[in-house]
Amino acid sequence: MSGVLLTGASGFIGRHALGVLLARGDEVHAVARREGPPQDGVTWHEVDLLQPHAAEGLVRAAEAERLLHLAWYAAPGRFWTSPENERWIDASLRLLRAFGEAGGGRAAMAGTCAEYAWDQAPLRERNTPLEPSTLYGACKHATDVAATAVARELGVSLAWGRVFFLYGPGEDPARLVAAVALGLLAGEQVPTSEGRQRRDFLHVRDVARAFVALLTSDVTGPVNVASGQAVAVRDLVTLIARETGGLERVRFGELPPRAGDPQVIVGDVSRLTDEVGFQPAITLKEGISGTVAWWEEQLRAGRTAVPEAGRVRPR
Amino acid sequence: MSGVLLTGASGFIGRHALGVLLARGDEVHAVARREGPPQDGVTWHEVDLLQPHAAEGLVRAAEAERLLHLAWYAAPGRFWTSPENERWIDASLRLLRAFGEAGGGRAAMAGTCAEYAWDQAPLRERNTPLEPSTLYGACKHATDVAATAVARELGVSLAWGRVFFLYGPGEDPARLVAAVALGLLAGEQVPTSEGRQRRDFLHVRDVARAFVALLTSDVTGPVNVASGQAVAVRDLVTLIARETGGLERVRFGELPPRAGDPQVIVGDVSRLTDEVGFQPAITLKEGISGTVAWWEEQLRAGRTAVPEAGRVRPR
Repeated sequence: MSGVLLTGASGFIGRHALGVLLARGDEVHAVARREGPPQDGVTWHEVDLLQPHAAEGLVRAAEAERLLHLAWYAAPGRFWTSPENERWIDASLRLLRAFGEAGGGRAAMAGTCAEYAWDQAPLRERNTPLEPSTLYGACKHATDVAATAVARELGVSLAWGRVFFLYGPGEDPARLVAAVALGLLAGEQVPTSEGRQRRDFLHVRDVARAFVALLTSDVTGPVNVASGQAVAVRDLVTLIARETGGLERVRFGELPPRAGDPQVIVGDVSRLTDEVGFQPAITLKEGISGTVAWWEEQLRAGRTAVPEAGRVRPR
Repeated sequence: MSGVLLTGASGFIGRHALGVLLARGDEVHAVARREGPPQDGVTWHEVDLLQPHAAEGLVRAAEAERLLHLAWYAAPGRFWTSPENERWIDASLRLLRAFGEAGGGRAAMAGTCAEYAWDQAPLRERNTPLEPSTLYGACKHATDVAATAVARELGVSLAWGRVFFLYGPGEDPARLVAAVALGLLAGEQVPTSEGRQRRDFLHVRDVARAFVALLTSDVTGPVNVASGQAVAVRDLVTLIARETGGLERVRFGELPPRAGDPQVIVGDVSRLTDEVGFQPAITLKEGISGTVAWWEEQLRAGRTAVPEAGRVRPR
């Protein structure tokens, strides 16, 4: 057994994780509902993990030593409340069990900052209460709770990376950074909330690097995958507008704040920094600059459309 | 819509809950893998809830106003570690969603004291850490976490009853009280552990009454279903032997203690007492006496066998 079984390989984080793993020289078994482009070092597995016995066949075919499980339901906006979240608990547990029963030794899985009660800052793995206020956060945390026990039963060493906010090339155009960049690049008006809420953003490539660092470490349990820095959404949008031009077309305050939205969501990153030994490589300024350049290129090449206005409202 | 949808209706608690509901005059839709005996007021539904779409059809057929979900994997000994626990997370969530989407308004579901970290006493719903040390406890708690969010999404009022230790007529013969009673009644030697560990035992009929009280209250969230009293297993066994005779055949200390077994597991019952308004009706002494009489009758009628010795070891 060798290599890495990577689920969600054509997803936002997954595509970047695939690149990071290949750059390390890992042999990757990449799982997606539709096969991705052929690449050296990658074996694609076209699998729908929501099918009850998909995991067993996949694990047998891949014979991987490590599992990086990123797949989940992720449709922008809808993912907070979709019943698909409930199905992914079961799919994730079936995958982990199949992996462990086949002798797999090490796994990392993607959790979320939405597992925490959001009324304190920074959010800490060790002592922040786990009281998810969304269905998404609850289903991720339910998976965390059960997967921890399944891993213990099967002798799998398991890390659980709690993802905060992210952005970068390949993001769904309906999500915050992409939508603002595309709207401004296209010369449109961009309505947003006041944007006073502060959030912990990390470039998707750093998120992917953090997951690979986590997978190849021997750290177990929950680890925040975050920058440790809270930026006001207003400042983030302004940073985008500085790259695209058109700051005067951002209509701050036109969208109402989301009910119950916390003022600050930021992660304590001491586990990620000190135990995993990970440091982000991309500053927010560099990351936004590169991301805007990437979207500009997508627009020029006709590979993306500008999303409908009025949807720019991150939680 | 009216009536109660009762899952696990042929299980240990479920059979007693069925009786309690019928005595109240409720119309009961009783769910089990095999239909139970016909009774006035009961409609049986022969359903395997582990089948992916079982819940939708069941909920449509029953049109019940309330859901009492007791079904789970319960094979003595094996239930602590069986992968079936993972399947019941999904089955429970599918059932709750089908119930809520069909307009169901009130549900109570069975959790366990094994959801808590076991290093403090008494265990409290509000502030004891939820750190299950077993797969069973973890899967129950995962269900709790996700079901709480599903119920909130669908506007279902949900109570989560955390069951402690129980005994009474109809118990599986391999479990503690039944096995000791049967062994002693049959004149056998009964090896047990030292039995210094103290546990919170409640008669199964009181457990069933507590669940019905919970279901018909408007209390939401976790509620310990317990007596609030810890009895040493040694004293419980002695109580049984006083009814059966043969105390000298109990071989205390012949079985080793279970690794990592906590000294005391007892529930704080203030929510059950003050908020639900429930009081147990059966003292431990009365309960044991009645239970021994019931097993005696089962033996006389040839309706049970004496379980293999050496297995009397509750967690």
